[in-house]
Amino acid sequence: MRNYIKYVVRVFFAFIFPLTIFAQDHPSLLITQPKLPKLRSGVEQLPLLKTSFLEIKNFVDLELQGTVSVPTPQDAGGGYTHELHKKNYQLLLNSAICYQITLEQKYLKRCKEIFLAYAQSYKNWPEHPKRKENHPSGRIFWQNLNDCVWLVHAIQAYDLIVSELSDQERKHIENNLFVPMVDYLMVNHKDVFDKIHNHGTWSIAAVGLTGLVLGKKEWVDKSIYGSALDKNTGFLKQMDELFSPDGYYAEGPYYQRYALLPFVLFAKALHNYRPELKIFEYRDKLLAKAIETVFQTSYTNGLLFPLNDAIKDKSIKSNELILANNIIYGDISPSPTLLGMAQKQGKVTLSDAGLQVAEDIYLGKSQPFDYKTTLIHDGKDGKKGGIAILRHGAEDTQQALVLKNTTHGMGHGHFDRLSFLLYDNGTEIFPDYGAARFLNIETKSGGHYLKENNSWAKQTIAHNTLVISEASQFNAKVSAAEEYTPSMIKLKEQGTITYTIASDKNAYPQTSLSRALITLKIEGLEKPLILDISMAHGNTKMASIDLPYYYLGQVVDQSQKDLAAAQTLHTFGTKNGYEHLWLDGSYTLQQKDNYLTLLTNYKFYKIHFANNSPETSLHHVHLGANDPNLNLLPTRGFILRQKNTNRAVFAQLLETYGDINPTDETITNANPMVSNFKMVMPSAHDIQLRFDVADKHYGFSIAITDNEITNVKTIEP
Amino acid sequence: MRNYIKYVVRVFFAFIFPLTIFAQDHPSLLITQPKLPKLRSGVEQLPLLKTSFLEIKNFVDLELQGTVSVPTPQDAGGGYTHELHKKNYQLLLNSAICYQITLEQKYLKRCKEIFLAYAQSYKNWPEHPKRKENHPSGRIFWQNLNDCVWLVHAIQAYDLIVSELSDQERKHIENNLFVPMVDYLMVNHKDVFDKIHNHGTWSIAAVGLTGLVLGKKEWVDKSIYGSALDKNTGFLKQMDELFSPDGYYAEGPYYQRYALLPFVLFAKALHNYRPELKIFEYRDKLLAKAIETVFQTSYTNGLLFPLNDAIKDKSIKSNELILANNIIYGDISPSPTLLGMAQKQGKVTLSDAGLQVAEDIYLGKSQPFDYKTTLIHDGKDGKKGGIAILRHGAEDTQQALVLKNTTHGMGHGHFDRLSFLLYDNGTEIFPDYGAARFLNIETKSGGHYLKENNSWAKQTIAHNTLVISEASQFNAKVSAAEEYTPSMIKLKEQGTITYTIASDKNAYPQTSLSRALITLKIEGLEKPLILDISMAHGNTKMASIDLPYYYLGQVVDQSQKDLAAAQTLHTFGTKNGYEHLWLDGSYTLQQKDNYLTLLTNYKFYKIHFANNSPETSLHHVHLGANDPNLNLLPTRGFILRQKNTNRAVFAQLLETYGDINPTDETITNANPMVSNFKMVMPSAHDIQLRFDVADKHYGFSIAITDNEITNVKTIEP
Repeated sequence: MRNYIKYVVRVFFAFIFPLTIFAQDHPSLLITQPKLPKLRSGVEQLPLLKTSFLEIKNFVDLELQGTVSVPTPQDAGGGYTHELHKKNYQLLLNSAICYQITLEQKYLKRCKEIFLAYAQSYKNWPEHPKRKENHPSGRIFWQNLNDCVWLVHAIQAYDLIVSELSDQERKHIENNLFVPMVDYLMVNHKDVFDKIHNHGTWSIAAVGLTGLVLGKKEWVDKSIYGSALDKNTGFLKQMDELFSPDGYYAEGPYYQRYALLPFVLFAKALHNYRPELKIFEYRDKLLAKAIETVFQTSYTNGLLFPLNDAIKDKSIKSNELILANNIIYGDISPSPTLLGMAQKQGKVTLSDAGLQVAEDIYLGKSQPFDYKTTLIHDGKDGKKGGIAILRHGAEDTQQALVLKNTTHGMGHGHFDRLSFLLYDNGTEIFPDYGAARFLNIETKSGGHYLKENNSWAKQTIAHNTLVISEASQFNAKVSAAEEYTPSMIKLKEQGTITYTIASDKNAYPQTSLSRALITLKIEGLEKPLILDISMAHGNTKMASIDLPYYYLGQVVDQSQKDLAAAQTLHTFGTKNGYEHLWLDGSYTLQQKDNYLTLLTNYKFYKIHFANNSPETSLHHVHLGANDPNLNLLPTRGFILRQKNTNRAVFAQLLETYGDINPTDETITNANPMVSNFKMVMPSAHDIQLRFDVADKHYGFSIAITDNEITNVKTIEP
Repeated sequence: MRNYIKYVVRVFFAFIFPLTIFAQDHPSLLITQPKLPKLRSGVEQLPLLKTSFLEIKNFVDLELQGTVSVPTPQDAGGGYTHELHKKNYQLLLNSAICYQITLEQKYLKRCKEIFLAYAQSYKNWPEHPKRKENHPSGRIFWQNLNDCVWLVHAIQAYDLIVSELSDQERKHIENNLFVPMVDYLMVNHKDVFDKIHNHGTWSIAAVGLTGLVLGKKEWVDKSIYGSALDKNTGFLKQMDELFSPDGYYAEGPYYQRYALLPFVLFAKALHNYRPELKIFEYRDKLLAKAIETVFQTSYTNGLLFPLNDAIKDKSIKSNELILANNIIYGDISPSPTLLGMAQKQGKVTLSDAGLQVAEDIYLGKSQPFDYKTTLIHDGKDGKKGGIAILRHGAEDTQQALVLKNTTHGMGHGHFDRLSFLLYDNGTEIFPDYGAARFLNIETKSGGHYLKENNSWAKQTIAHNTLVISEASQFNAKVSAAEEYTPSMIKLKEQGTITYTIASDKNAYPQTSLSRALITLKIEGLEKPLILDISMAHGNTKMASIDLPYYYLGQVVDQSQKDLAAAQTLHTFGTKNGYEHLWLDGSYTLQQKDNYLTLLTNYKFYKIHFANNSPETSLHHVHLGANDPNLNLLPTRGFILRQKNTNRAVFAQLLETYGDINPTDETITNANPMVSNFKMVMPSAHDIQLRFDVADKHYGFSIAITDNEITNVKTIEP
């Protein structure tokens, strides 16, 4: 009876207010009306879709036990109202999904209640009281960005339930929530809306999606072509500017993951509403490449390479990347290796694309994700450096070596050119610190970046790369770092040898930095050997040249025995990050056979040092000095140092061996195989490295041109 | 044809040398002949048995690609010959199992080859060149113990294949390997054979098992009743002396796991060969209790509590505990919760008992393991202290609180009376350091205990317990610690409150130590609150009373703000382990509302301090001073200190809250609920604690009798 009345009322309103604004059936975004029946049966039959749906449904059912709460915005990130408004947009979208899957009225009811509560209050909320100077504000949250994210979610929820609303309800919600919110984002914060930056993308996507769902052509056009409709800003411009041709986003994988979401969502909506734009074909399928690239910049344990400002536990399981994976598979190119990634993610989105992924996995089409040895170019033209990734071995024990030599990455960039990371056997071996930040932890600077992010994490000494005279690259000035692009990075694969070379002439004045990383597969060794050759050349003498290796695990051996025990600790330096390092002990490398062995995650990593003149010293350090608030995470490293020279060369060889079984208390392959690692420099243009493995001799020649490493070749040993 | 000749030869020998020594069919130990057919079909049909068998078979098949190698013993633990001889006994047993399951000749052949090689060489081997003074030597390994372990495995392999050997082969192996080996262990090293200690148990089991299989009654009798056959030593005496009535073994869980194996193996063999002994009934089913106890002294993540000398990654998945679990289920008491433990272990032994476990799991009889809140009594009479374990919540997020107050544990004991551990949410929160040892890592003191095991790990300051005047309990003298047993430990469960109280009067001269740990469940809080009240009372003034909390995770907040940053670090003290701690910073607690909040594994742990006179100071420390070889593992802690008093009371309240989802970057329940935590002492016999949770008031009274905490009760708040 109630339904009958509702029907009559709707028919009545439909006569009075013709639905001219609805050019398309709803839902029409990630879930489209024609797919709904299959999605409803899919959650019963397809395991991955079923578990993904149940997770959403459990979340919503739990929330439905409580009541709607839409408080006046008050708190900063991590605070009560902040988290509640975040939960509300998730609840909006998820209960709308639950409604469309189950058609149970309780989900629709909650969705409407929340919308009506926001429509009731939104216009009365002023700028957020916790907004920050020089940072665009929001009204629901302390920053504009979060308001955009709120709208991106809310409008999708609205699309899912709008066909169930009365015209009166619709008008109320649209006029009191969506229209003023778009106005606030697009007009009041036009600077953000037009900014070529991920905050801009979120703003555009929020406004553009809302425009599509509400049938507001002007909002959509401005989102695509910029507020002036001149294509100097807007979505297409963002696609042109923010990614390299390989789909790399200069802020690094952590932000690329985040930045991708509005790109993918708005592109998918444009794909549905304006197919003539061929948005997924744009810039040679740029979005597909950008998604592939973010997966390639992860290790096989699922964690993204923590380059630049990055929260280290962010993985390929993040919702943005689940959606991205589904969309690329469902709408761009259905590669079976993406199904392997979806299986690692363990979840799909409740969407047309997620349905397709779950179904094809169910049909057995999945193949393991294709982790590649690859060079990802940076820069709009693909000529501004990049990231080299060298991978070897099976997925669960993969060796992955990463060399970074990209553009700076704007405000989230670190001064880390030529830094390298090593992963092996499922874990970090030589890690990057990532960002100094406790995300959402209000007692840690409100969950924002800590001051140690500037004083430590961004500084050059915090990375596994060369540091000249205890200063950071570009003196830690973003503007200078943005101005100069890296000189070069290349990657070659030749049979058993793979190498990458990178160089830079601008990070330090009158100084060339270059580095080669070589992997060499040898029959009988479980893992490829890794050679790491770094060179700094200054026009004048450099006071000191440091090369840190931060490590996980424990030092179990080193060539220098019987070190003195420190009774008092001092910092390794006084500024540029050095003030945060305690110096545990130092020694000078001997003329030959120098090494240090780490035990990390039940394997040995022996680093052989081939030192030459000038004298090289080794310094054990650990992090935590000048840290009154205990903001820094426990971190240990050793730093190689040369002094007072205009050319410093460091050559290391890393061998990996040993299998320790902690359950059975057994150890196999416990003996290293490499010996006699030596470096000679027959000329200023040639570094020769030689070593033995068992009874075989090996040799490499590293060519130097214009004071930079430029080539690698094998030589007669 | 070859088989026919072999048959003829065997029949021929059988006439010449009647088989009088074989009183029983073989195999006859873990696998018995009647069960073989079912075991052979079981590895095809029962999933757990199948995977367990395939693991063994894969190991053996890989080894079969190589050749037999039985080198002259030469290396210490972790070295080449050490690891090879270890692998050989595993290969012997596993290939014998493979033979009996598959009846493939290649497995039998390899088994025989290895036996013959040892029989060829063993008598020529002298005492091991790497043996240590004052430590019983072996001939295959550097210590006697490992030779015993070798024999325990080898004789089981022999039992599995002896029926396939010619009499000539048998005699050769028995006369040149088993007889001289038993002679070496039972006669040359009679002191070990008769020692009431796990080394003795291994020696007895090795000799006894060999006697049973070879039909040597004398060896068996001496193993059971001691070499003098007077029952003052031997297996039964070991069962009497080494375990408490609750089945606790004084060296602690790590060694209990290891010590159990020879008990279980020899008992199982006696159960088969001498059923009249009723060995599994002995001492009120002692062995079943001992096995149950070792599982109860583990956390739900599978890791054993690392009390005393313990390698911390030792888990319930160790082979000893898999066997123990199977035997208790198959031969003593088939509780379905043991099947749950077997499923956690993920493996069964290839044995009659393992078959039973796998079959019953397959039949759906399994129930989750029953982790208990329990007091495990120590001492032969059960009256020498013990370990209290307080558990709450679901298995995957369980809160487990442990209070240790046991006898010392002989040479592997730590000076850690009244120390506590906390686990929660799948991980350690306040850990115990365990042993300072890199097992099997030859570069770390040959894999033996490091000198830091004495200078740090065993010292009182290395544990979460009271330290008086910077000295260790019993001045770190084992003999004194062995002489005096703890005064008391008790455990009570009363509705929403569970508490344990323990005390000691001997660890420090003229000083009483006592501690109460209370858990309190409160409606609306996810986890029980924990109250920790420690008291030291001296007949004279104590110079300092320290209470450390070592923690995992990061300090994210503390009541004292704006601490000064240290520019130079000094050690916290000069001896008794203090010399290994760097002092990061100190402050004095204020009159009220003192707290410190940790973030560990995505949850918050807020410790509220109720301090009273005398003044209490808090000292942040981290491990690593006076450690030239980098032997110490990164460890952080804070230490509460009172000074110059004859009574020190520390009262802390711990609340657990917050759920951080690193994938979604959300945080829920981010706010602590406890406030106004206060302590008053209305008399010398009463400590009163009060606090509020939300709007409710709570109060506890801690009774003091004879200068020790003796009781806990709630009071009107």
